[in-house]
Amino acid sequence: MVSIKDVAKHAGVSVATVSRVLNDKGYVGEETRKRVEKSIKEFNYKPNEVARSLFKKHSNTIGLIVPDIMNPFFPELARAVEDTATKLGYNIILCNSDGNREKEQAYLDVLQQKYVNGIIVSSNTLTAGQIEKLNIPVVSIDREISKGLPTIVVENKKGSIVATRYLKSKGCRRIGHIRGTRAVVNAEERCEGYKEVVGKEPWFSESYIVNGNYDMQSSIEATIELLSLHPEIDGIFAANDIMAIGAIKAAHQLGKKVPEDIAIIGFDGISLSRATIPELTTIVQPIYELGEIATKMLVSLMEQQPLEKTYFILDVELIERNST
Amino acid sequence: MVSIKDVAKHAGVSVATVSRVLNDKGYVGEETRKRVEKSIKEFNYKPNEVARSLFKKHSNTIGLIVPDIMNPFFPELARAVEDTATKLGYNIILCNSDGNREKEQAYLDVLQQKYVNGIIVSSNTLTAGQIEKLNIPVVSIDREISKGLPTIVVENKKGSIVATRYLKSKGCRRIGHIRGTRAVVNAEERCEGYKEVVGKEPWFSESYIVNGNYDMQSSIEATIELLSLHPEIDGIFAANDIMAIGAIKAAHQLGKKVPEDIAIIGFDGISLSRATIPELTTIVQPIYELGEIATKMLVSLMEQQPLEKTYFILDVELIERNST
Repeated sequence: MVSIKDVAKHAGVSVATVSRVLNDKGYVGEETRKRVEKSIKEFNYKPNEVARSLFKKHSNTIGLIVPDIMNPFFPELARAVEDTATKLGYNIILCNSDGNREKEQAYLDVLQQKYVNGIIVSSNTLTAGQIEKLNIPVVSIDREISKGLPTIVVENKKGSIVATRYLKSKGCRRIGHIRGTRAVVNAEERCEGYKEVVGKEPWFSESYIVNGNYDMQSSIEATIELLSLHPEIDGIFAANDIMAIGAIKAAHQLGKKVPEDIAIIGFDGISLSRATIPELTTIVQPIYELGEIATKMLVSLMEQQPLEKTYFILDVELIERNST
Repeated sequence: MVSIKDVAKHAGVSVATVSRVLNDKGYVGEETRKRVEKSIKEFNYKPNEVARSLFKKHSNTIGLIVPDIMNPFFPELARAVEDTATKLGYNIILCNSDGNREKEQAYLDVLQQKYVNGIIVSSNTLTAGQIEKLNIPVVSIDREISKGLPTIVVENKKGSIVATRYLKSKGCRRIGHIRGTRAVVNAEERCEGYKEVVGKEPWFSESYIVNGNYDMQSSIEATIELLSLHPEIDGIFAANDIMAIGAIKAAHQLGKKVPEDIAIIGFDGISLSRATIPELTTIVQPIYELGEIATKMLVSLMEQQPLEKTYFILDVELIERNST
């Protein structure tokens, strides 16, 4: 491999001068700069990125911590982050935390030791204190950690109100809710939205809410439990699409037709919400935009560019398909 | 942050000695080593990983190049790679190439400049020549690049023979094939397996094969085209699960019942093959094991440990569900 020494020798300058040209730091005469640039081009010299990160104290790398890349929401988000990061000259290190506090802290430690320039994290256990200790920019995505941190989320409560009202408008008289993982902020918000619409109805009790853990299999079991306890239910709002798919499967197992006997609506708008028959009516998040804005915001923070705002709440949209 | 100087001062030794202890290189007296280790522990000193990578010419990082993390096969693979890498002390940099030759080369360049220790790649455009130029270990996964390279794939042809024979055994008399992306090795192999079973039947012609591009939407269109041309088809082998899900949707649109009017079988065994009604009969790959073995093999190569073999072909298994 060509080294910086070869380039310096060819250009007739010192290694320090080549380094100044490469890093665009310190004075280099116009004539000399041109000669060095010509040599770099001729040799097709690629500077050693690790040496440069050490010099610049960063590595052109962004850490991305998600609970689990196998939850179909996160590949769509990761793709957006990676696309945007690549365009801006950064790579991403992918970390699966399983929402586990210790794993998250271990990843934060390793990422900081590797001089990543910044971190995008979707967490429900990290605290503002843990983040502030890091001394590098962190953007919280999909789940708010603290109002004071750079954050991008969606209108979870509003979307859930829209979803539940929509079921009512379709004639549903008893509406159940499959909630997401306990202690996850967006699961709480979506549950609140649901309760805001039906919580004061005379028929309502907490037993209309079951926990589907943001997972298909858990949702199948939760839905079967819910419909056994309340066979009168004719509408279900599931807090994400994968659980809504589970609810459709459970209804089918119980011999109930969707949407004739029971209407089902999800949340997220992942590509797979179109995989089922009937296709899923859902509250669509702009997932790609979420990842894109988070990455741009993080890079701006890393590069110390001015930012108009560091807290984004993106809107969501009802998409009617055939499950309601 | 605590520096190596603080540790050296506290232990009453030189920075070079602390470095020798940290990197386990060069002679350090037993007494001294213990004193240094005690100071490291007391200060909770975390060595600067970037400086260490420069010293060791690597960064405890593995590059993972996949076509698209949004294709549901790859999150399952990425999860296995990341889990295994983390256990062995490595992080992964995720790269989406879209199967594009230029993007792949650009990622190889960047990853090498970052001193990643090795690369796992799923590619159908890279050549053995491009890989050999890299001077770091590369493991090819899911798609063979060259017999000479460390590789892990599955029994694509054999699995496809099993799938097609199975449709015959279920009484299908006209079997169509939704093939994967052209020029992708495993798509070719799966198509060959299909042809080996039905290619010599009197009814067979190339028009029983359509291209679904390993994608749900393309498969819906391809299946509608196939069933319009050959309404007599009563069985379809799709070269992956996402296309099989597309085929189920297309059959439904055309008013055909699955499996009564038409039996459909997929390939991969992704979690989402259970999301449909009916659940998909499929040829299951050991996806997690694929990622796990690839990562272990790569780390062994990186750490110059002896390897019994560098070419793995894993077996696949027919799982009967309700789409056939």
